[in-house]
Amino acid sequence: MNKQIDTQKVFSFCERLFQAYGFSANESKIITDVLIRADLYGIESHGIHRLVRYHEEITSGQVTVGAKTQIIHETAISAAVDANKAMGQLVSVEGMKLAMEKARNSGCGMVTVRNSNHYGIASYYTELAAREDLIGVCMTNTEAICVPTFGSQAMTGTNALALAMPADPFVFSYDASTTVVPRGKLEVYRKNGEPLPHNWALDQDGKPCTDAALVVDNIIKKAGGGIAPLGGLGTLHGGHKGYGLSVIVDLFSAVISGGLTSNYVNRKPDHTGICHYFMAIDYGIFGDKKAIKENMSKFLQEIRDSKKAHGHNRIYTHGEKETEMMAERLNGTIPVNEKTLEEMQKIATGLGVDYSL
Amino acid sequence: MNKQIDTQKVFSFCERLFQAYGFSANESKIITDVLIRADLYGIESHGIHRLVRYHEEITSGQVTVGAKTQIIHETAISAAVDANKAMGQLVSVEGMKLAMEKARNSGCGMVTVRNSNHYGIASYYTELAAREDLIGVCMTNTEAICVPTFGSQAMTGTNALALAMPADPFVFSYDASTTVVPRGKLEVYRKNGEPLPHNWALDQDGKPCTDAALVVDNIIKKAGGGIAPLGGLGTLHGGHKGYGLSVIVDLFSAVISGGLTSNYVNRKPDHTGICHYFMAIDYGIFGDKKAIKENMSKFLQEIRDSKKAHGHNRIYTHGEKETEMMAERLNGTIPVNEKTLEEMQKIATGLGVDYSL
Repeated sequence: MNKQIDTQKVFSFCERLFQAYGFSANESKIITDVLIRADLYGIESHGIHRLVRYHEEITSGQVTVGAKTQIIHETAISAAVDANKAMGQLVSVEGMKLAMEKARNSGCGMVTVRNSNHYGIASYYTELAAREDLIGVCMTNTEAICVPTFGSQAMTGTNALALAMPADPFVFSYDASTTVVPRGKLEVYRKNGEPLPHNWALDQDGKPCTDAALVVDNIIKKAGGGIAPLGGLGTLHGGHKGYGLSVIVDLFSAVISGGLTSNYVNRKPDHTGICHYFMAIDYGIFGDKKAIKENMSKFLQEIRDSKKAHGHNRIYTHGEKETEMMAERLNGTIPVNEKTLEEMQKIATGLGVDYSL
Repeated sequence: MNKQIDTQKVFSFCERLFQAYGFSANESKIITDVLIRADLYGIESHGIHRLVRYHEEITSGQVTVGAKTQIIHETAISAAVDANKAMGQLVSVEGMKLAMEKARNSGCGMVTVRNSNHYGIASYYTELAAREDLIGVCMTNTEAICVPTFGSQAMTGTNALALAMPADPFVFSYDASTTVVPRGKLEVYRKNGEPLPHNWALDQDGKPCTDAALVVDNIIKKAGGGIAPLGGLGTLHGGHKGYGLSVIVDLFSAVISGGLTSNYVNRKPDHTGICHYFMAIDYGIFGDKKAIKENMSKFLQEIRDSKKAHGHNRIYTHGEKETEMMAERLNGTIPVNEKTLEEMQKIATGLGVDYSL
């Protein structure tokens, strides 16, 4: 079902495509770089597969091409930005760079963004900070799909939390939803006609449910039920902890930015209202940076070197797998689903863009 | 097995006891307040039940009575503190207050603490900040009991993460370990002779294990195995996410403070080496505080009001249960285990302290 496509050709294709929507050459390069990074990292759910969704968002008016972002409130260490419906990737690179500039000047920078759109892979932004020897943190809310403990109605989103900290030989790069799984995983089970694992999802009445098709349909129709928070349904495995983490992501991205919380996101045809949070910390404000980075590298190496579980021969630290996969794919090929290729060709034809891959 | 004891008498008893170790009247009051708060909140594992452990730590030299803490590194928004083996509660109140002062002056304050000891209930410190209309964050590492995904050796601690944000009528107060359960839960299963739920723990070979006695014994003997991260064993339910969160807690508490990571904590008879992180944010740096607090209150109320799951009639937000229980217990009684009462009497007798409760 997948075809191997030359990575550099996919980059060029996407840049041509985004320019056709009216984005500048530089903007198209940024959007493409975020998008393809997901494929390079092996996180296909956030990569080229998303082009159709972005096409719909741009053509439906959810995304405003050429939107000017606006700083609503600012201090030496903070800024609250209104994205004015800009493409998520553009305002997010801008937001993290602003946080990084504040961190370099004042030790720490925190930027909230409201009225934005889907921003792709969160670790793209945290790693921008880590590459300049800063700790990067980012969060985003999304359309509600996660049901609070003891509830039957989705109130928070996938609400991913990401953090990157410089280390050798691999940056520590954490990027994970606060749900037990993202929605894409349920779609894979539906496609394969397999029952969901227990503790993943709820039906419209708030009963545990392993019927992937029913749960996904309910999510699409906003008919009730949805996905469990990290830790699963109820409290036995700590579902209340994941539920709290998802609220924390809404707090930083939506509440303090004055934007829409997850339960109001994607409720209008021309406005998603997605909110983000970006933070950069110059960890030199706590001591000698070289020594701190060495401490982190040593700790991660000790984890990788620790005893393996029965049947396993490797312990990964976060970001390690992705770094290895990117090295392999960047000057080679990435796997693209044949259905995605068809969609890409159709979009290209509609916009009069050269499809050669 | 529990007796109801007058809350104010327990307060007085603990204050007398800590003064007998050599702490000042004010220090004894602070330690007691943190300790009893756990009982008031219904979190018995961190309350008066811990007196024996504190007794051992103080008399063995892990805790230094009268220790002077030292600021190693400082900026307008940060400080790195060496606790010099002070009582965890004392350096933690000091650390959070320093973070709060910096937040009031500069918008944000971040304080790392190394060479400390167990600090009790984390939400005590985050709520100090919330009570003064700031966001409070705190983290602590502990002795390694949590096994990384695909590993068989504990490398991180319970590594709790806490955050409090002002809201009406209940402060949002999140306080949770990054393990699927804390060690105390396993001890309850062992005491009751019940098998552990699947996905909670591993034996010394890294095989899934439901034998509570074996897992607890292995933890005590540092023989291998331990507790799964939040999300459980393997990756199916997101165990790699909890594992990453536990590393993040070690990053902020131990790595950037130049202290000991969890895998080195409690390895010497006279030094635990526990590390903490305290952060306060004046959320007015992002906009109008009144409007932001109202947004948070509204979002939490919408969650509480959302549809309940089959068989449930209430959705709690974090901190709600604890606030209610404290109101009930503060001027009434708290339940204390009879065995704990015996231990308290024994300690009191040994120190020549009046035991009347």
